[in-house]
Amino acid sequence: MTTPLNSSGLRGQVAGQTALCSVGAQGHELRYRGYDINDLAEHSSFEEVAYLLLRGKLPTRAELTAYQQHLKQVQALPEAVLAILRLLPASAHPMDVLRTGCSALGNYLPESSFADQLEHADRLMATAPAMLVYWYRYSHDGVTVDLQTDDASLGSYFLHLLHDKVAPELFQKVMQVSLILYAEHEFNASTFAARVCASTLSDLYSCVVAAIGTLRGPLHGGANEGAMALIQSCENADHAEQVLLEKLARKEKIMGFGHAVYRDCDPRNAIIRVYAKRLAEASGDDRLYRISERIEAVMWREKKMFANADFYHASAYHALGIPTQLFTPIFVIARISGWCAHIVEQRANNRIIRPSAEYIGPEAQAWIPLSARDA
Amino acid sequence: MTTPLNSSGLRGQVAGQTALCSVGAQGHELRYRGYDINDLAEHSSFEEVAYLLLRGKLPTRAELTAYQQHLKQVQALPEAVLAILRLLPASAHPMDVLRTGCSALGNYLPESSFADQLEHADRLMATAPAMLVYWYRYSHDGVTVDLQTDDASLGSYFLHLLHDKVAPELFQKVMQVSLILYAEHEFNASTFAARVCASTLSDLYSCVVAAIGTLRGPLHGGANEGAMALIQSCENADHAEQVLLEKLARKEKIMGFGHAVYRDCDPRNAIIRVYAKRLAEASGDDRLYRISERIEAVMWREKKMFANADFYHASAYHALGIPTQLFTPIFVIARISGWCAHIVEQRANNRIIRPSAEYIGPEAQAWIPLSARDA
Repeated sequence: MTTPLNSSGLRGQVAGQTALCSVGAQGHELRYRGYDINDLAEHSSFEEVAYLLLRGKLPTRAELTAYQQHLKQVQALPEAVLAILRLLPASAHPMDVLRTGCSALGNYLPESSFADQLEHADRLMATAPAMLVYWYRYSHDGVTVDLQTDDASLGSYFLHLLHDKVAPELFQKVMQVSLILYAEHEFNASTFAARVCASTLSDLYSCVVAAIGTLRGPLHGGANEGAMALIQSCENADHAEQVLLEKLARKEKIMGFGHAVYRDCDPRNAIIRVYAKRLAEASGDDRLYRISERIEAVMWREKKMFANADFYHASAYHALGIPTQLFTPIFVIARISGWCAHIVEQRANNRIIRPSAEYIGPEAQAWIPLSARDA
Repeated sequence: MTTPLNSSGLRGQVAGQTALCSVGAQGHELRYRGYDINDLAEHSSFEEVAYLLLRGKLPTRAELTAYQQHLKQVQALPEAVLAILRLLPASAHPMDVLRTGCSALGNYLPESSFADQLEHADRLMATAPAMLVYWYRYSHDGVTVDLQTDDASLGSYFLHLLHDKVAPELFQKVMQVSLILYAEHEFNASTFAARVCASTLSDLYSCVVAAIGTLRGPLHGGANEGAMALIQSCENADHAEQVLLEKLARKEKIMGFGHAVYRDCDPRNAIIRVYAKRLAEASGDDRLYRISERIEAVMWREKKMFANADFYHASAYHALGIPTQLFTPIFVIARISGWCAHIVEQRANNRIIRPSAEYIGPEAQAWIPLSARDA
């Protein structure tokens, strides 16, 4: 017997259990293993959060130091993977590059036993910034980046590779916060794709590659890029209000607003907005930040829609000197931690995810020979 | 409000609608768009079936001829994709190779508009045999295969590339039948992964890559390889019975038996068994076929479990001279047609697939500073 469809897209349908994350309690909460996102963003590093997600508890100081060293150790990429990245064209979608790079890595360092799953998760997380920037700078700037640095944190490592220098302290902090905010978010589509893949007991690389491909879609990742396009199309706050009102009158979708799960607000917005403002102040150019503020205010006034995690990420990333097309790939760097934690969790209590479908096609058809079809 | 979990793995839960396939009516039926699998396997070519799945109707003779020509036209691979395939080691898992090759292809010939989706589906289907065999023969035999042949059908093309000669007629017919049997199967895990990916409006390459990674898992693809290992471990039919009874006494899982959806039998088994027998007779060596027959009989006698589509595929593929590690990748070549038809269907009536989870983790945790964790 099959259970009928409650709503399309499995909305509101419980598809499994998780101890990793709770989203939307009281309409606006986000917790990773019980820890509030505000505490994590204010007090911890991304590596602490990744450890929490993947190892199940906050690390001690000694464990964190060892973990950071471990991530540096697994950061080297096989030369053949670098050769493949050099073959990918400058015109490629950066998400296609990450998908291909992660897939290629699985050919050289396959997960031959689930006993090593955390090692592979760490490697994927630690090498993702390198794969992305190595390809980007080789194909766009003709530069072969030196992937060995002393950066203790992945966000700092990413900025260092991208800009060929150690990033300012504020920039490093913003990257920490950003990666923490994007690390995990329950059964979103990309995480669910990773769990469907994991449920066949496939390898970790396949699961992460499935998730990258799923995050690539404009209904999932990419909202911060969409927000950036809107913000950059405005000259100042007043112009932004005018542009936005025109778009709303045409019933255009505004990227970076509303959420499938939160009802009152997205708790990540208040956090990243503070840093977007600090970056604007530090740079002496707050034009994009003021445009963003106005768009947020008008969206609330006109539509009662709140900005989500993606909206202020646009001006923040821009202030960090990150090219817009690399916004969604940063989401990947962060979310690999959450995806892999879900893969580990799925494997620990697995049943293959194989739903049913409601058949709406034609009834039984009599066979028509090819010769009779020409008539 | 969320709907509670009915059963793990979404078993029996309707997750969407499809007009492509009905599975398991009367406990044993399989129909593609209403056409019975027995009719399709007996009367049609794989290309007819792919056309039916992707274009929604059986082709006329003129349409089929044009379609076969079209598949030849999109069969050329960019030189950079071939270069990437040459970089993948002989030790790689062939499913990792296909996953990486398909992902790489999406960098060079991206699906920039859904208007061209069928063109990209055709290209992925038409090039998968080439990607697989090109890598296999380059890495294993040191041979650079000429990918241009006159074969009108993908199964014949695959055998031609693999063996450097036009395959015998019976071999070509078996490949037709095999690809038809594996082309489509409703909301199995890999197809569901493809639909989850498609639901974010991601590109076709990402969806197919997600599906390949999902099929790679031993609970999904790979059963025919598992069946082959068992069959090859037996000397003759009597020995097979002894080996099998020992395995059953140890409660080992026997690959190639039972099914998540069919209750009485898998209709594909009766079809491929006939061809496995013909191949055995034609070769003058029916040892593996007789071993297979005995295993099937003992499994029914002892466990009331029926052989599924995978079981006789093992001895059939072996008789075709196909290395065991390429068995699951052939499944990919066939199933790309079904996956892509589901992607097209998902896009036509889309809502992002974003279920909920039951939270079973810790309650709200007070923050513990790093310095306080050392105690």
